[in-house]
Amino acid sequence: MIRVGIVGGTGYTGVELLRILALHPDVEVIVITSRSDSGQRVDSLYPNLRGLCDAVFTRPDVDSLSVCDVVFFATPNGTAMLMAERLLEKNVKIIDLSADFRIKDDKEWSKWYGMDHACPELIDQAVYGLPEVNGEAIKQAHLIACPGCYPTAVQLGFLPLIENNLIDFSHLIADVKSGVSGAGRSAQVTALMSEAGESFKAYAVAGHRHLPEITQGLQIVAKQPVGLTFVPHLTPMIRGIHATLYGQITGDISNVQALFEQRYRDEPFADVLPYGAHPDTRNVRGSNICQIAIHQPQDSNTLVVLSVIDNLVKGAAGQAIQNMNLMFGIDEKQGLRTVALYP
Amino acid sequence: MIRVGIVGGTGYTGVELLRILALHPDVEVIVITSRSDSGQRVDSLYPNLRGLCDAVFTRPDVDSLSVCDVVFFATPNGTAMLMAERLLEKNVKIIDLSADFRIKDDKEWSKWYGMDHACPELIDQAVYGLPEVNGEAIKQAHLIACPGCYPTAVQLGFLPLIENNLIDFSHLIADVKSGVSGAGRSAQVTALMSEAGESFKAYAVAGHRHLPEITQGLQIVAKQPVGLTFVPHLTPMIRGIHATLYGQITGDISNVQALFEQRYRDEPFADVLPYGAHPDTRNVRGSNICQIAIHQPQDSNTLVVLSVIDNLVKGAAGQAIQNMNLMFGIDEKQGLRTVALYP
Amino acid sequence: MIRVGIVGGTGYTGVELLRILALHPDVEVIVITSRSDSGQRVDSLYPNLRGLCDAVFTRPDVDSLSVCDVVFFATPNGTAMLMAERLLEKNVKIIDLSADFRIKDDKEWSKWYGMDHACPELIDQAVYGLPEVNGEAIKQAHLIACPGCYPTAVQLGFLPLIENNLIDFSHLIADVKSGVSGAGRSAQVTALMSEAGESFKAYAVAGHRHLPEITQGLQIVAKQPVGLTFVPHLTPMIRGIHATLYGQITGDISNVQALFEQRYRDEPFADVLPYGAHPDTRNVRGSNICQIAIHQPQDSNTLVVLSVIDNLVKGAAGQAIQNMNLMFGIDEKQGLRTVALYP
Amino acid sequence: MIRVGIVGGTGYTGVELLRILALHPDVEVIVITSRSDSGQRVDSLYPNLRGLCDAVFTRPDVDSLSVCDVVFFATPNGTAMLMAERLLEKNVKIIDLSADFRIKDDKEWSKWYGMDHACPELIDQAVYGLPEVNGEAIKQAHLIACPGCYPTAVQLGFLPLIENNLIDFSHLIADVKSGVSGAGRSAQVTALMSEAGESFKAYAVAGHRHLPEITQGLQIVAKQPVGLTFVPHLTPMIRGIHATLYGQITGDISNVQALFEQRYRDEPFADVLPYGAHPDTRNVRGSNICQIAIHQPQDSNTLVVLSVIDNLVKGAAGQAIQNMNLMFGIDEKQGLRTVALYP
Repeated sequence: MIRVGIVGGTGYTGVELLRILALHPDVEVIVITSRSDSGQRVDSLYPNLRGLCDAVFTRPDVDSLSVCDVVFFATPNGTAMLMAERLLEKNVKIIDLSADFRIKDDKEWSKWYGMDHACPELIDQAVYGLPEVNGEAIKQAHLIACPGCYPTAVQLGFLPLIENNLIDFSHLIADVKSGVSGAGRSAQVTALMSEAGESFKAYAVAGHRHLPEITQGLQIVAKQPVGLTFVPHLTPMIRGIHATLYGQITGDISNVQALFEQRYRDEPFADVLPYGAHPDTRNVRGSNICQIAIHQPQDSNTLVVLSVIDNLVKGAAGQAIQNMNLMFGIDEKQGLRTVALYP
Repeated sequence: MIRVGIVGGTGYTGVELLRILALHPDVEVIVITSRSDSGQRVDSLYPNLRGLCDAVFTRPDVDSLSVCDVVFFATPNGTAMLMAERLLEKNVKIIDLSADFRIKDDKEWSKWYGMDHACPELIDQAVYGLPEVNGEAIKQAHLIACPGCYPTAVQLGFLPLIENNLIDFSHLIADVKSGVSGAGRSAQVTALMSEAGESFKAYAVAGHRHLPEITQGLQIVAKQPVGLTFVPHLTPMIRGIHATLYGQITGDISNVQALFEQRYRDEPFADVLPYGAHPDTRNVRGSNICQIAIHQPQDSNTLVVLSVIDNLVKGAAGQAIQNMNLMFGIDEKQGLRTVALYP
Repeated sequence: MIRVGIVGGTGYTGVELLRILALHPDVEVIVITSRSDSGQRVDSLYPNLRGLCDAVFTRPDVDSLSVCDVVFFATPNGTAMLMAERLLEKNVKIIDLSADFRIKDDKEWSKWYGMDHACPELIDQAVYGLPEVNGEAIKQAHLIACPGCYPTAVQLGFLPLIENNLIDFSHLIADVKSGVSGAGRSAQVTALMSEAGESFKAYAVAGHRHLPEITQGLQIVAKQPVGLTFVPHLTPMIRGIHATLYGQITGDISNVQALFEQRYRDEPFADVLPYGAHPDTRNVRGSNICQIAIHQPQDSNTLVVLSVIDNLVKGAAGQAIQNMNLMFGIDEKQGLRTVALYP
Repeated sequence: MIRVGIVGGTGYTGVELLRILALHPDVEVIVITSRSDSGQRVDSLYPNLRGLCDAVFTRPDVDSLSVCDVVFFATPNGTAMLMAERLLEKNVKIIDLSADFRIKDDKEWSKWYGMDHACPELIDQAVYGLPEVNGEAIKQAHLIACPGCYPTAVQLGFLPLIENNLIDFSHLIADVKSGVSGAGRSAQVTALMSEAGESFKAYAVAGHRHLPEITQGLQIVAKQPVGLTFVPHLTPMIRGIHATLYGQITGDISNVQALFEQRYRDEPFADVLPYGAHPDTRNVRGSNICQIAIHQPQDSNTLVVLSVIDNLVKGAAGQAIQNMNLMFGIDEKQGLRTVALYP
């Protein structure tokens, strides 16, 4: 059994880790921390876990976490980087769901996240946990930087096009829509149902923190700078991300559908739909799958890729567990064979 | 492996059966029928099942169903009663999710369902599939009448009070709220999102088809007539039923919490919350659990019981599978250990 | 022109006052205060008012408010009682949308609201602003205690039954469902869309602050104690209250429909639907109307009354303006002839 | 008083016309037709109109409509073209909310709408009813082709950029999101709340009927062919359209904000927000206003314009009434001064 610790168990990614791990046959969750709720039973805060989890929230503490084989950080940005070094020294593997180790350039990181990095020397050994790109490196990794939700949906949609040099790298557009759970479980007026319900808006058009992460990921593959316009939107639903991606065609795309299918043939959680399909976010709600479809509207010069995920699963907790499975040499799909909840 | 057939696989209870059975380790779904979609792949209609279901919808037909060990009817009322006899003759067990065999008095049934009953002689051998009441009978049954969604939530909330003679049987009130998936997957103006979204209303106050079913269930336990006012409401969400039950106290209720806990101690899917709790429907969304809480507001003479289920799971497909597990002598929880999807 | 001041203009009842008053032909809003947003343009916070409101939020201050003919308090409980006396001395009329002057017994008020009353001597002169009950007194009033949202829906539904002695006063049940805007525009986890969306629950079953207010209102009419069980619920929509009211019949109800119609014939904002109708909250969304329907299910001994309002209009800002119209001798419907937004 | 007829009064654009016209001081609605509901009172179908509308639906008929000054067609495509000629002959003005007269090339129209045009000779005299473009022509018109909802939001956002030659006409992208009321009030599975709620998807990416309409409108202004990629999406809310528009900068945009403000300075229903704002659809819900904001993310070469409307008001009924006001020489804003319903 893999002994698991979760730091920050009271946010949505934390409780989503608990939901999935509760039924994972190879895992025992032995520590769940929460500064605000320490001393409380987990299932008193989350009654959906009644009967499945006897744990009590404790205060986060390196010593108690050091008995774990792996620790998930489901914390706000800036927390994992304070504890990572000491845990790694004690041979505890780390899967960080926050942004602390995602950006390779720590100056760039500081610019977007508004603080100095506490352990820039660890950034290099952190592996970016997108299994469809870094599967082999993940298997050897001790420190995983789990991708953001938007970056997962956008990169999986663009990658085959970039790897095959089919679109103009300087004019990529990602118009992405997210459910409100992406804003987390913290009290904010903008995430109230009275504010976010029955309304739709763009936000952070000037520059969202996931922009440098997406750009970095695409540039590694493109081996050259890419120009990306990324517009995130808030849509009145709880779970789900829908990325609508636009590229100007520069290569021969007669084969593009087969190319996508082949690219993801061995990836259990990237599913290429038939050409011209329209994926619904509900069809991946609660599941770890990214569904992708390709269009060339009106035979024009613009290729459109639609990519949907559940932001809390493939965009966070599910992907983290997929990384864990790879790191511990067990079946990549273990614990992740859930079926999306429809309707 | 239990060989399963599903008649009427394209409605919400049908696809919910498929969702749960896809991960049930002891089951093989070998026939899925749909008059309207025969010939189509199941996963082209329900992309959430991609990779989990290779089946193709066929036309319903006794011969092809007769190779099954058990057939679920997820059909409109009036269908199961036309095929039941021939299937039973061929030693196929039947779990009917429709209302065909729920009401013991076929005249009463006809009054509420607006048609003659096609096989009144089978009604008597049908076991009402509420495991918390009829567990032993279900194990021996060949024909199960699966309870309606409202009746499940209302009966589980009222039963301990009636069994212990604690409230006035002549003045029961059940104010119940349902999500819109209860209306099914058929094109109706009243179930459009533009109509049912962002609005709340009661419906069928004069008399809903589930009224005689609930009354019958309570009367069997009460061993006398009961007077029930049942008001169903439509609430703007997809899944979930919340029953708010009112009884006038006639007995000694000082022990009522312990009594509920004891009543359901051995029932894996009836969960009594701490006294005074407020169950949310979201905490059972996608799961087979009924969560129940008791209140005596302001120490008055009125007892209030809150009871929540997922109408498509404990109120339909999940309960049907719980029945199947019992009928085939396997663990009652097999395939039903899902965790509710929160948020 | 009536010179209007609004204290607490940034909550939902405050902005709803602004929405309605923006088109009221006899009103000029001259002061809008907000501690948190003073100095900001109103329409920068509320872009739906662009072009209709040039005002800037100021800090609340008796002197600047004393030039008004009437001041609306759209503030949290405990604020109006601190300024009321000085404003009344300066001949400014007050319409308080908070609970400060609703309960006649200040000890009872303190028990429910958790603070001492700052000016108990004013409570007596405050008129409870339910125009369908106190229309004449409102016309003469200087200080109005505007009813709560739940109390408005519940009282308008029960009143004709109590006035005519048709039901058992000791066993009233009010099962009431509210949209989430009733929780106000303050950052709270429970009102997040991820928490309140797609879920339904009861809350405060042990005792909600509106219970003593409703009981007081019904007792004044009943001229005797009443026993009320009041269970509020949160429903996943933004605006709307649906009260489902239950009474045990004790009188002759053969005439009950005509009786309701006659009771409200001259009340422009209480609309009795045909017998057996099912009012939708959406049909009063954005309007000041209360729609009411009566049922006697299965000819039993229980009478069911359905009563719907928009909690922010008839349940708050609209009713406040209806009071203002009466106090200033203008047409009760002035500024309130809006049509509910459907769909 | 303008005598108004409405053909097709039972759909969402029909009832929206009734909602707005009920309070329009210069209008008397004298005929409301509905094939399916003739004989019924309008307010029995639409209880939000109780007290405001005594009309009864009649069957559509040229003779009874010929006493009107103007007839609105809120009908499915293909109906207005069958009655237009006879009504125009009788000097009745026509405002068609359907697509019958929007496309100047009747062959192109037939291709997209799947039927032959019944009176191609009238297409030329039809004025495209976008007041911000054709204000003067509308004043003289007898036959108005009211724009579609998507085309309104997209054209108003792109127009100033095209008129001033600021972006590359061959690579326009319009990523547009619509609430479900755009699908109309007809029973369809895809518009059920259980299907469209809590989910997000693109649809008709291969080619939506509004594509040729938008292209035609932009080309008239551009005076050359334009290349537009238009991707419509369904978002889980009832009302509202949010267009996110992308253009590659080719001209000097240092002045672009002032240019937009100047372009729409005299247009009462096109409101340019401050540079970098994020319009919410809720801020125009129920109002006739289009709110527009401009962004140049990361100072890149891509300009982003955000444009929001209420699809049933500025995208349909409100715009139709704005056209009527212009045609009859009354204040363009008459009857349209409603404030958006927030929250």
